[in-house]
Amino acid sequence: MSTQPTHADATPVPAGTLRNWATRCFAAAGMGDDDAALLAASLVQTSLWGIDSHGVALLPHYLDRLANGTVRARPNTHIERTAAATALLHADQGHGIVVGHRAMAEAVRIASEQGIGAVGVKNGSHCGAIGLYARAAARAGCVGLAFTHADSVAVPHGGKRPFFGTNPIAFGFPRPGGEPLCLDMATTSIPFGRVRNARREGHPLPPDTAVDAQGDWTTDARAAVAVAPLGGREFGHKGYALALVIDLLCGPLLGNPYGPHIPRMFDAIDEPRRVGAFFIALDPARFAGGAALSSQIEALAQELVAEPGAPRLPGDPEIDVAAQRSRDGIPIEAGLTELFRACSARFGLPAPL
Amino acid sequence: MSTQPTHADATPVPAGTLRNWATRCFAAAGMGDDDAALLAASLVQTSLWGIDSHGVALLPHYLDRLANGTVRARPNTHIERTAAATALLHADQGHGIVVGHRAMAEAVRIASEQGIGAVGVKNGSHCGAIGLYARAAARAGCVGLAFTHADSVAVPHGGKRPFFGTNPIAFGFPRPGGEPLCLDMATTSIPFGRVRNARREGHPLPPDTAVDAQGDWTTDARAAVAVAPLGGREFGHKGYALALVIDLLCGPLLGNPYGPHIPRMFDAIDEPRRVGAFFIALDPARFAGGAALSSQIEALAQELVAEPGAPRLPGDPEIDVAAQRSRDGIPIEAGLTELFRACSARFGLPAPL
Repeated sequence: MSTQPTHADATPVPAGTLRNWATRCFAAAGMGDDDAALLAASLVQTSLWGIDSHGVALLPHYLDRLANGTVRARPNTHIERTAAATALLHADQGHGIVVGHRAMAEAVRIASEQGIGAVGVKNGSHCGAIGLYARAAARAGCVGLAFTHADSVAVPHGGKRPFFGTNPIAFGFPRPGGEPLCLDMATTSIPFGRVRNARREGHPLPPDTAVDAQGDWTTDARAAVAVAPLGGREFGHKGYALALVIDLLCGPLLGNPYGPHIPRMFDAIDEPRRVGAFFIALDPARFAGGAALSSQIEALAQELVAEPGAPRLPGDPEIDVAAQRSRDGIPIEAGLTELFRACSARFGLPAPL
Repeated sequence: MSTQPTHADATPVPAGTLRNWATRCFAAAGMGDDDAALLAASLVQTSLWGIDSHGVALLPHYLDRLANGTVRARPNTHIERTAAATALLHADQGHGIVVGHRAMAEAVRIASEQGIGAVGVKNGSHCGAIGLYARAAARAGCVGLAFTHADSVAVPHGGKRPFFGTNPIAFGFPRPGGEPLCLDMATTSIPFGRVRNARREGHPLPPDTAVDAQGDWTTDARAAVAVAPLGGREFGHKGYALALVIDLLCGPLLGNPYGPHIPRMFDAIDEPRRVGAFFIALDPARFAGGAALSSQIEALAQELVAEPGAPRLPGDPEIDVAAQRSRDGIPIEAGLTELFRACSARFGLPAPL
């Protein structure tokens, strides 16, 4: 998942300040203390990684959903163990990040018993950056795979109108004494947020990443209505096919809707999302190379960085941004500052900035 | 996985003729009758799908490997069950396609018991088109995931020299009364075979798909020495990261080598390959939408094809090619005809054409 540019009008705020404030907001919105703290910490961690589209910027939206009840602050979630190595988490419209953590923790627990565990989330909501869960599995010593789907924003390869979401995939692998190796990628070239940013800033889009209302390729952000699958004009059948199979895993397999039938995150604010997610954890100790996996990953990292051009491991850019933002603060744009102050006022809390 | 153009000098040969002949060749090379038939049927099926790079064109190479013993005709394979839901197939340098089928069949069997099953292959060899195994799982009523890795041919994003292979990923989903839905894709934009074809035919390569000996982007097929990750110049970090995590799953996790340490398929003909593969099968009945999964896939297919541009399901183009080639024969190029005749002569068999 790519990090996004910081704007000149942004004010840096310490991560701890945002975390405490966000926890108080979610608790004031009715969430239990543990869930509020977990959700706040997840959003701040995502912002620390530089993934601003999925970090604290979503707090006002989540508060709106908690206020109208389309995300339930105290859902009646339960885990149904459907076989020795599989389970279904009935999320009861709970917050996707809270239930996502719970689902992956269950997958890890099952993997420690059975070697592998798979847990699907039924009737959930937006679960933020899915690298959260792949990394959580890796911190627990597992290999983690995470998938989720989203409402229509990407044109199918060969199609003209949005159909699938940016349906991301994540993998996490443990590394000794450090942050996990983590791939967390949308199956479109760019997120729709980048279109919104380009509109605001008057920049063109990269070629072959978006289409206009007629379904024709455009680099004009104001004309763009949908983003395009990874692979672009010639190889977009690959990103499209990945988005499709991820939608099947998270939607129909789990009794959730797919593509155009998923209620829209921002536009259908009064409808429950009915979003799914799918998590797999693998216990490396059950495979021949498990004991040496972490040291092999270190050897791979060393070998790559010694190559001409010094390619890095997936997730390393996020680790760098997190180090810088832990030190200097998380930049909060002026527009978001206003929204944060309004959230504070709603609950009679002091504003974080 | 994309199909490849057929050449003007090709002669169509009935699939059954090729299957019988290939079975006799592999048996003559020392394989057991069942393994020979399975390998032959897999190669012919792959050619029927139009994936000529991984179909019967590889028969002469596989016979060379069987002759020099770097692929064992009668390996001492065994499956080690490492937990309730995981297993390791010790392939003993057996043919990757034969052990691949056995590994996925075991994953399906485990999934029927435990809900999900994961089976890794240790010390295997080239396992052909991994869509074979994802489709096999889907025909058995499961959702199948398949991964394999390969020797260095792709430049890492940000790098200059080949490091990872084209490391493919496949997903298969059951469809009622028809061929499974199947994604089978390399994590590079193009396979290296397309570079070879473009050299022979004097065509340029698509932009942002290959680099030259200095690691600079090139469309000149004669100058290209490595292919580039899916996503190209700007978004190639995604294809690169997928290739890397697939290499970790199939290599280090299973005690197999990674990237540059994998003995080369064609260039290191006297070295055992030590290639891995990783298979996951999921029993849809263990998830809330399992009973309706096939009908939901049909609904999705209908809905997509009714969209402007009529986008199709992954795997549908291969189904079309298979229908045409089942009727008209599999095109065998003149150069391959000569190789096939030499193979026949080696074993005193009648040539297939």
